[in-house]
Amino acid sequence: MAPPPITTSVPPFVGLIVRVLTFICLLISFLVIVTNTHTTSTDYGDVKIKFKDFYAYRYLIATVIVGMAYTLLQTAFSISLVTTGNRLGGEGFYLFDFYGDKFISYFLATGAAASFGMTQDLKQLEGSDQLSKFLNTSNAAASLCLLGFLFAAVSSVFSSYNLPKRT
Amino acid sequence: MAPPPITTSVPPFVGLIVRVLTFICLLISFLVIVTNTHTTSTDYGDVKIKFKDFYAYRYLIATVIVGMAYTLLQTAFSISLVTTGNRLGGEGFYLFDFYGDKFISYFLATGAAASFGMTQDLKQLEGSDQLSKFLNTSNAAASLCLLGFLFAAVSSVFSSYNLPKRT
Repeated sequence: MAPPPITTSVPPFVGLIVRVLTFICLLISFLVIVTNTHTTSTDYGDVKIKFKDFYAYRYLIATVIVGMAYTLLQTAFSISLVTTGNRLGGEGFYLFDFYGDKFISYFLATGAAASFGMTQDLKQLEGSDQLSKFLNTSNAAASLCLLGFLFAAVSSVFSSYNLPKRT
Repeated sequence: MAPPPITTSVPPFVGLIVRVLTFICLLISFLVIVTNTHTTSTDYGDVKIKFKDFYAYRYLIATVIVGMAYTLLQTAFSISLVTTGNRLGGEGFYLFDFYGDKFISYFLATGAAASFGMTQDLKQLEGSDQLSKFLNTSNAAASLCLLGFLFAAVSSVFSSYNLPKRT
């Protein structure tokens, strides 16, 4: 006879802490990127540069917003689990957690990577010195998104371990 | 009494097919990116542009090479599983599969995203028209890496479902 399958449970409060940390990282990343502006003087007057002027940063902010919304929902589920001991939405939601965590963590990883990829090469271009502060702040936002991704990846490992509990 | 945990098994040959598809995508992506060059005429003579000149493409190629090496190893394991019915390395290797697949799929996702992020914004720059063919070919390589990532993500789902089998 095959040995019984092994299941490991992660304490609910550990899951909650990881969700909260994910949310905090994404929130700070969001605030950093939307407040990041740079004004440069040209022959035609002052030009204000914002995150909107770069595809990569627009993608970063999209991933951060989707990530925050999802993490907020999961935080509510986790609070309910910690306080009542019952998983909101029933046991069948383990599948939702599993696929949701997988998708969101991949999404956040690509958001951070797209921004890093763009910023690193943009820094090499001529005349990018003026933009240096703007690019460094953007990199800080991408780093926070990367940190948020790492916490989301931990959540994804937890929800994979919880997978056999589904009904 | 709690209901027994649910386990789902993926047929070994399905796992093998997904590994082979991952490897093919990464191999083509690798060949496309290393053979992609562009020669541009400047006042100082011809300048040859290669993937090495961009951080994002160097990162892409690093992820693709690591991804290929890992996928090749996993393909060997899968072939052994399909032909002999035994998992090479023993049952304990389910944990290796789980974390390995997770890491490699995240790694490939960031490789593709970094290249896309950089290419999209580079295309907006003045004078990038000359580079257009080079950038489009690079985007094709990144797309193949993205496709490889999608197959790797499927492998990661399979290895998560196999997790309760570990001993």
